[in-house]
Amino acid sequence: MLHLELDGSGARYEQLARALRKAIVSGRLPAGARLPPTRELATQLRLSRNTVLTAYEIICTEQLARTRGGSGTYVNTVSREPPAARGQTQVGPQSRYTERLRRLPAVTMRSASRLRYDLQYGEPYLDAALVTAWRKELSAAAARARLRYPPVQGLRELRAAICSHVGRRRGVICDADDVIVVHGTQQAVSLIARVLVDEGQPVAIEEPHYPLVAHALAAHGARLVPVPTDADGIVCSALPGAPDAIPRFVFVTPSHQFPAAVEMSLERRQALLGYASMHDNWIVEDDYDGEFRYEPGATPALRSLDSDGRVIYVGTFSKALFPALRLGYLIAPPSLRSDLLGAKRLDDLSCGTIEQLAMARFIADGGFDRHLRKAAAELRRRRTALLAGLARHAPALDIVPSRGGMHIVAWLPGWTLERLDDLLRNAAQRGLGLYPIHPHYVRPPSTPGLLLGFAGLSAAQLRAATALLGECLADMKQ
Amino acid sequence: MLHLELDGSGARYEQLARALRKAIVSGRLPAGARLPPTRELATQLRLSRNTVLTAYEIICTEQLARTRGGSGTYVNTVSREPPAARGQTQVGPQSRYTERLRRLPAVTMRSASRLRYDLQYGEPYLDAALVTAWRKELSAAAARARLRYPPVQGLRELRAAICSHVGRRRGVICDADDVIVVHGTQQAVSLIARVLVDEGQPVAIEEPHYPLVAHALAAHGARLVPVPTDADGIVCSALPGAPDAIPRFVFVTPSHQFPAAVEMSLERRQALLGYASMHDNWIVEDDYDGEFRYEPGATPALRSLDSDGRVIYVGTFSKALFPALRLGYLIAPPSLRSDLLGAKRLDDLSCGTIEQLAMARFIADGGFDRHLRKAAAELRRRRTALLAGLARHAPALDIVPSRGGMHIVAWLPGWTLERLDDLLRNAAQRGLGLYPIHPHYVRPPSTPGLLLGFAGLSAAQLRAATALLGECLADMKQ
Repeated sequence: MLHLELDGSGARYEQLARALRKAIVSGRLPAGARLPPTRELATQLRLSRNTVLTAYEIICTEQLARTRGGSGTYVNTVSREPPAARGQTQVGPQSRYTERLRRLPAVTMRSASRLRYDLQYGEPYLDAALVTAWRKELSAAAARARLRYPPVQGLRELRAAICSHVGRRRGVICDADDVIVVHGTQQAVSLIARVLVDEGQPVAIEEPHYPLVAHALAAHGARLVPVPTDADGIVCSALPGAPDAIPRFVFVTPSHQFPAAVEMSLERRQALLGYASMHDNWIVEDDYDGEFRYEPGATPALRSLDSDGRVIYVGTFSKALFPALRLGYLIAPPSLRSDLLGAKRLDDLSCGTIEQLAMARFIADGGFDRHLRKAAAELRRRRTALLAGLARHAPALDIVPSRGGMHIVAWLPGWTLERLDDLLRNAAQRGLGLYPIHPHYVRPPSTPGLLLGFAGLSAAQLRAATALLGECLADMKQ
Repeated sequence: MLHLELDGSGARYEQLARALRKAIVSGRLPAGARLPPTRELATQLRLSRNTVLTAYEIICTEQLARTRGGSGTYVNTVSREPPAARGQTQVGPQSRYTERLRRLPAVTMRSASRLRYDLQYGEPYLDAALVTAWRKELSAAAARARLRYPPVQGLRELRAAICSHVGRRRGVICDADDVIVVHGTQQAVSLIARVLVDEGQPVAIEEPHYPLVAHALAAHGARLVPVPTDADGIVCSALPGAPDAIPRFVFVTPSHQFPAAVEMSLERRQALLGYASMHDNWIVEDDYDGEFRYEPGATPALRSLDSDGRVIYVGTFSKALFPALRLGYLIAPPSLRSDLLGAKRLDDLSCGTIEQLAMARFIADGGFDRHLRKAAAELRRRRTALLAGLARHAPALDIVPSRGGMHIVAWLPGWTLERLDDLLRNAAQRGLGLYPIHPHYVRPPSTPGLLLGFAGLSAAQLRAATALLGECLADMKQ
């Protein structure tokens, strides 16, 4: 049905003619289209048929349309409104935020070419049985969910389930009031930035780090202070000490440094907590894949050592379940809770009820734990296959095996970045996807390295992939 | 299973004793809890049983636990770590954003008391058949959805469905590239603010307006410029004209002014577009309930008249379906698209895939249109019942019937705010929930008014509610 608006000014036939003119000029009534039969349009708009006939005559007089004998009125080809500014696809940055946004480097995209084996590290292990289980939870949740506005903080049922989950698995003792449900780690970081940081203030990030977190902070206006990491995690002695350089917070990934894959030592954890107490600032702990550990003696979260209320703990379901689910949580110190809640409310009101309820039930009925056990067992097999394959086919690489997570790091001592580029190109030609670590640094390291993800390939594929990597390395020696 | 971390420093029994001490002091092992049998813990941690026995002895020597004959080792009542800063529930504002956030007035909450008839205006019409249909879509989408990271902009399938929907129903011609899927209107506003507005810059809002939009802008740091509205919508001649007062954008609700319930006239629409062209700034059109119209000659969106690429159109599914679904969209001019997309990426990466796919199919298979037709028919009945009831029982009220949406406005000419308060109190005591319009103003109007929502009550309930309102008004005369 044609959508026409009468603007109420002047005679009815003039109003209708204006509406038709606008529809034709804007292209909603394209050239060749037939106008509605006058009788039909008259009924639809509650006009007399004469009014419609008069409007059609006006339009035809203006050569916007023509009658074809008794067969109706048809739109002529007309020159449209100039698309002028519509087509103008670039304006200057409209705010300082936008200025900073436009200065950010492009996010490294995965290879678009067809690869036989892609050792990508961002996508987690995906499991068909999980889809079935999740589908059931969603359907049950849709039937049970309250359809009104959900609470800003998240459903109490989910927050309670998160408390029990992080208590059991990550040693984090909290209660449901401390938890805020968010749309994943990225939202947690952007809320924290707003609540803690003014434009121009310093924030410490690990070097290397996850680019999108750094980008969110930089776009917000934070001055990024990269702090080196070593085999024990962030080097606390390198944290700024001068009064005007104290970061508003230190962003860390203690359980599995991203992307260097090391674990923060207890001494460093204590030093970091001491630093925050001394300077009265904050620590953000991103426990992005703290769920997956492959060696005994799992380390609890940094937050479990925090007796001073300085750690904001951030967790996500996107890695443990699947990235298409945008659901995570932050566990805030009581002193920041209401501010973070206020920022969440103004950012997007709340997260959707049905996913929250499904997740709450998935945790409470044990499905989540079952999935994590199964995924951890499979990831352990894959990691073992990758490490064995590398030991056999690429013994020259210096491997950081990493006790958890979904990727390891392989350093190439003595290599140049140019030589690494040759390797990546050669590997891509042979169908092997390899990803360098240096784009994750503000200042690239002197030794090149590779991030080798093992979540996306089976153990057999990983054996074949490492053999292919061995061939690529052999090529380089010739 | 008890979660213990060995920190690797010193003898094994010292490490275990430290871990146990921490668990007891932090409360993870509460007073009276039995420590795991030594043999079991030894196996779990891959330690010798002697190591565990020695650690238990240390803990007992420190009086953190005691042995009870042969029955095991039990945790003593110990003084916990001082909750010091943990309990500290207030710190000063940690950023200028937080400072502004804390200055915002509390959002008006709905009456918590039990009401027989609640004429609330925020919650839309809810429908049991919709739950069934949505559940089916979700379940089908969960089975089909790609589980990897969704595109930042939203699924192409959903963006295409949105284009066809807004083209048919709102006269908005766009293509899928113009659409960005967001978590509702609130997120759209917060992204737009970041992309267009620096701290301290003016933004024009309608007076009256929806408080949470104003709050998001104020917290962002915008200087709010309230512009009066009348029976034709925003008064364009009252828009600021001085060079340093030109707002970065004008936020309007043309199809159904919130909350005054009037529709913006064509002249005003054209004047507003002219203003934006002249001052090279932007218009944000919030079409929050443009789906529901009760009189012929539905007005297309303001965006359909925009030939200059200055209107950012914002739509939501939360009102048309249900608020527990946090899904909406913005249709951006090409010149702002990549900046808005960048802001969305850094805010929360993207919206969840399964809901997007379900929504895309719900539009494409006609379920959404069917729901809208059914909802509009029912809302029309309710609106008619409300208007008839008011005419009969409250003829002194000055009604703005409103051609669309889910509430009407009733002005009380000659009343004072004190008298209105008496009415609200009396009504609440009699079980009738009434809501005043003045909290939606920066500067309350001289005439008090009521927002009367008709979406949440049946026609019969609305008849009874208006009768009760008549009684409350009669009481006021005594």
